[in-house]
Order: sequence, then structure tokens, then C-alpha cells
Amino acid sequence: MKENYLDNSATTKVCEKAVSKMVELLSENYGNPSSLHKKGFDAEQELKSARQTLALCLGAERDEIVFTSGGTEANNLALFGAASLGKRFGRRIVSTAFEHPSVLRPLEALRKEGFELCLIKPDRNGRITEDAILSALTPDTVLVSVMAVNNEVGTILPFDQIGAQISKIAPHALFHVDAVQAFCKIPIDVKKAKIDLLSASAHKIHGPKGAGLLYVRKGVRLPARTLGGGQERGFRSGTEALPAIAGFAAAAESFGKPAVLLPIMRQKAALCREKLSGIEGVILQSPEEALPYIVNFSLPGIRSETMLHFLSGKGIFVSSGSACAGREKSHVLASMDLPSEQIDSSIRVSFSNDTETEQILELAEAVRLGSETLMRTAKGRKQNR
Amino acid sequence: MKENYLDNSATTKVCEKAVSKMVELLSENYGNPSSLHKKGFDAEQELKSARQTLALCLGAERDEIVFTSGGTEANNLALFGAASLGKRFGRRIVSTAFEHPSVLRPLEALRKEGFELCLIKPDRNGRITEDAILSALTPDTVLVSVMAVNNEVGTILPFDQIGAQISKIAPHALFHVDAVQAFCKIPIDVKKAKIDLLSASAHKIHGPKGAGLLYVRKGVRLPARTLGGGQERGFRSGTEALPAIAGFAAAAESFGKPAVLLPIMRQKAALCREKLSGIEGVILQSPEEALPYIVNFSLPGIRSETMLHFLSGKGIFVSSGSACAGREKSHVLASMDLPSEQIDSSIRVSFSNDTETEQILELAEAVRLGSETLMRTAKGRKQNR
Repeated sequence: MKENYLDNSATTKVCEKAVSKMVELLSENYGNPSSLHKKGFDAEQELKSARQTLALCLGAERDEIVFTSGGTEANNLALFGAASLGKRFGRRIVSTAFEHPSVLRPLEALRKEGFELCLIKPDRNGRITEDAILSALTPDTVLVSVMAVNNEVGTILPFDQIGAQISKIAPHALFHVDAVQAFCKIPIDVKKAKIDLLSASAHKIHGPKGAGLLYVRKGVRLPARTLGGGQERGFRSGTEALPAIAGFAAAAESFGKPAVLLPIMRQKAALCREKLSGIEGVILQSPEEALPYIVNFSLPGIRSETMLHFLSGKGIFVSSGSACAGREKSHVLASMDLPSEQIDSSIRVSFSNDTETEQILELAEAVRLGSETLMRTAKGRKQNR
Repeated sequence: MKENYLDNSATTKVCEKAVSKMVELLSENYGNPSSLHKKGFDAEQELKSARQTLALCLGAERDEIVFTSGGTEANNLALFGAASLGKRFGRRIVSTAFEHPSVLRPLEALRKEGFELCLIKPDRNGRITEDAILSALTPDTVLVSVMAVNNEVGTILPFDQIGAQISKIAPHALFHVDAVQAFCKIPIDVKKAKIDLLSASAHKIHGPKGAGLLYVRKGVRLPARTLGGGQERGFRSGTEALPAIAGFAAAAESFGKPAVLLPIMRQKAALCREKLSGIEGVILQSPEEALPYIVNFSLPGIRSETMLHFLSGKGIFVSSGSACAGREKSHVLASMDLPSEQIDSSIRVSFSNDTETEQILELAEAVRLGSETLMRTAKGRKQNR
């Protein structure tokens, strides 16, 4: 059966250039970057080159990139570190209610340690304005953490407008952006957006699972959370995962530029929205101006898992909420105050640059079929009760 | 120029089986183990299978293995977690003075938090007896952390005898073993040795950099340090680095058994020791009964870096101290109370299962040549002063 993989916000197929770079670093150039001989030196050069490539994607300098095992570790490092740096100035942290669990859980832990946590809720369309964030700031706010793109509904948050304003109200606040779903997909310039800390992950852009990065603005003396040999300029010890890191850089280089990709992706997303909204009962849950890699919809009456397994049986792979939430109810959709029945029947479709029109048409057709088949079954069950 | 890689304790070439497994998981079976569709299920099965394979290497159960990004993260998770669990019972931590920095640095951080740290020093031959460790235990000791094999001189520590005795003196102590240099190379049975926590790393056994594991004995409720989606049963959040993890398991499976390998490796180590000790001025610094993958020697009068670069120029790759210590003075050799001149001229040679006799002979010949050439240069410099 041909596969129709439409779960690219959960993870992606690794691109050929990344795979071949990784094989090279696993089999030939396998030195430890910390070793002082030629093989170590060669590995160190590869590490530098990957760091440079990824820094360029963000308008950052090479030495501002700290490699981690992924987005989750980057978020933890950023949040716990920023809170620790900020606590002498104040205790207030401002973020949103629909952040990824790797932001919300550390923030909850910080609240238990005595920080005051203000989580801004999105509206019913999944939007949060810069004013909503800025009006929550106080002079004793020490950390603002806002995702660039929401992972379930695709909202693009106005992180650049927020960044430009923070220091006027909260001069001691560090600004962290979780850009795991945004990296390479929308333009990000950490200097223009006045970002202090930014997280990204390789496996969302056709790089391998097991590599991520934290941009740490020069001058931010973030305390380390993983202590040891002092790699990554002391910010994060441990032998560098060079094959994964070089694969990350190769994937970022191969990804293409947002200016070229976004118009094409907008056409794909528009087609998907059009076809899905033509199906009776379908409610689109992604805002219209969402990142065009993500379309979230609901079909009240058919539980997410039921539709997901129906589609999986046809070789079409989508998600209910996010992969990270597994079987739990979506806190993202709940924060949008959507009705329970709508939340429980949500599906997230997520594209890659390579997703073809046929895949979208096949998905829409299968959802229509699923809707008819499963709705009948659901009604039948009700009558039999 | 043919390469003679003799720095396998720093990192290893990834074996073919691991590479091909990784390529499969990067390019085909690339699902997110948390996804609920078939592609996620397939990935989850691969993860389970890797966990089972690695658990078997330790005599552990599958659910006792927590995957991390490497040995350093595993050590940090174990030590900070065990201290946090233990602090209601006491404040004393017993370890050794020649642990890896990824153990010593967390322990130093814990001392700053109020723990009492007792670090047992090895003797001049790099040995530490079980009695030396056991006599440092008190009823309020809450953590004992002992490496299985020292990474610079290769000492095999009596971790199994230690484990068997701890609970008699320190009933609340958790026992952590840093087995990064020992895993797959010597027999380890976590149940027999009464180990609560054990760290291992993929890239020391021909697996990829970027994967490690922490054995967490069932019942030990270690607090998580990386919060998020709740992967690894909540012990360590973040999308699992499945390609690296599966590569780790493939490498462990391919490595072979200590019972078969150790006699062969002992012959190689004995040959290396014999040839090196035939060179004027060479002092062997590894104990005779050390892990036969490591031979550490010194050639007073020639600085480590000088010899290392001389050998590197001939395509022979060895280490001065450990890769993790980079250019710093070896704390391992310092803890053995060796004279400064001896420490500054130390070289670590480390083998893999594939190291051939010719490589060892070539190394010894090059060291002899280096000794003559460089010693003359050094003497010349002195006379010219």
C-alpha cells in the first residue's frame, strides 16, 4: 500500500542529503570533536560548519548556537536557566496557555518554586495578539516565553512585535521563543525580533531525531543543566552528537527559503481547507492565516482515534492533537474554549514541502468516506443502546 | 595515508549493522513512537526492541532502561535525582576522585547545595579497593557512585563487591555505576551487583554519538530533569532519538561477549605493554589487570601534546588523558599522586575489538622513533637556553 504521510509536525522523513552526511560522520569522519589529533580536528571542523549553517538560518552568530538533544531539552535549558538568572529581579513569568508541554511543564515546576505564572489564553480562533502578551508584562517580569508557531493549530504568533516591545515594560525580562514548528518555515531574525533564547529541532525539518539547538544571545550567561566535560562552551556538556548535528545542518540547508516555499504551501493548505470544509460536519480549527504546513479540523460525532485509525488503515497518517500529547485531551484546543465534542474529534493534518496535491485530495476523499461510514456506525451504536 | 585509530575510549567508528539500522530508521521507518497511527506504532516497536536488547546486556528488565542523549546526561540524571531522593535520609555522598567530569561536576554542584562529599583516592597504581569505598560509608550516606572502569588508566573497580555490601552499612544509599567505559566490555549484572542506577553510552561500543542509557531499578522514583511530553515513562521527556537508539542496540548486539573478547584483548594489551616498556624512559601507568582496551603510559621529558601530534602526523591517533578533558591537566593521574612531569607526558592508547597486532607494533615503533626524535629536540632546546 502506498503511504500518505501527513503527520510532518510530529516528525519528518530525513532528507537524502542529511542521511548521506550522517553516514559519512558515522563511518568515516567519526572522531570526537574534543580529541586533539587530526581525526578530532576534522570532527571539530564539521561541528563548526554545522553551527555556522544553523546560525545563518536565524541571523545569529556561530557562537550563539548551543546544540542539544532536541527541542524539549532546549526549552528546559532556556526556561530553567532564564528563571534562575532572573530571580534576583523579580518572579513574574508571562507565556501562553497553548505552549508545548516542554514549555508548560518547566513553567509549572517554576511556579512551584515560587514564580508567578501568567499564561495568556488564545481566542476561539487560536489567535493571541501582541497586546494580549504585552499588557500582561510588569516591571518585575523576568521571562517571556512565546512559541513562534503553535504545534496543533498552526497559529503564527507575533513574536517579532512582542520582542520589540518587551524591554520598554520589563527591562529585566529575557525573551524565549519556542520555534520548533517555525524554524526554516517562516523568516526568523533573532536580532531584529530581539530574541534572547530560541529553541529549534532537527526532526521537524527532515533532519534526524536527537538533535536540537538553543540560540543563546551573546551576553546571556545561562547556567548549565548538564554538567561534565564542558562542551558547547560549558552551556551543555556531553560528547556532541555530531552525526545528528551535521544531519540537522544538512536538512536546514536543503529545506529551501520561506519566501519561495510559503506561497506554494499556502496553495496546498487552501486546497486542503477547501476540500475538508466541503464535507458535512467538518469544522476547521486552524486560523486561516495559520502556518500553511498545518490544518486542524474537527468532525464532531467521530472520535479522533476512530478517524485516525480509519485513515491509518488506508495508509494515510495524520494526528489527533500532537504526537507528544499521545492519548491525552488536547490542552491547546481546550485553551481555545472549544466544546468538548469538538476537541474529542479533532484531527491535525501536517504537510512537508514534498506533499503533493494528490495526497491532499486522497486525504479529503478518505475523510469524507470515513465521515459517512463512521457516523453511521456511531449512530447505529446509539440506537442499539 | 593509512589511519591507525587507537583512541577508541574517546569514541569509535560506528559498525556497519548500526549504520544500516540507522539509515532504515532515518529514511523509511521514520515515524514518531508517540504517534498513534501505524507508522508511529512501527517506530514504537523498534524502540521496544532496542530497549529489550540493551536491557539484556545488563541483566535488567526492559522497562528499567531510560534512554538519554549519552553518558553525560545519564550521569547527571542519576546523580541529581538520587541526591534529591536521598536528602530526607542524609547528606553524605561517597564516590572516587578519578570519576569522569560528568560525575565529578554534578557532585561538586551537590556539595554546594549542602551535601557532604567524600571522594576516595586511588593508589599510585590507579587501584581502589572495595574496603576503601566501604569504610567511607556511614548510615546517613544516601548515594554511592563508582565508575566500573576508569576512562584514562582502565582500572576495573570492584563495583560488584561494593554493591553487595552497601545496604548493610548505608541502608538508604542508592548505588550508581558509571559504566560508560565498561558496558559490553566486562560482564555486568545489575541485579547481582545490586546496582540501582547505571549509565552507558552508545559511541564507546561502535554505536553513534547522541545515545546513552540510564538503568533505573524498578521502584526507584527518580525525579525527571527534562520535562515535557512524558516520554521514557516520564523520566526523560523529548522525542526519542530512535535512529541513534536503534544504532546503539545494533552496536551492542554486534559487539560480542566479554568471555570471548577479553582473552583476545588481554593478548593485545600485553603485547602493547611489552613493546612500550621496551622503550627507554616509558612508564606504564595502567594497572596490569586493567581493562585490556586501555593502555596508559608516560614518557617524561616529552609533553603529551608533542607526542600526540608527532603520532597524528603519522596517522596514529591516541589521546593525552581523555578527550573530555581536552587540554586540561589530567585529574585522574593527579589523583594517583603521580609526579607532574609524568602526568604532563601521558598518553592513552585505547583499542577496539578490531585493533590488529600490526597497529600495535606500528604504534610502539612510532613511539620509539618519537622518543628519540623529540627527546633530542627537547634536550637541544634546553642546551640553547
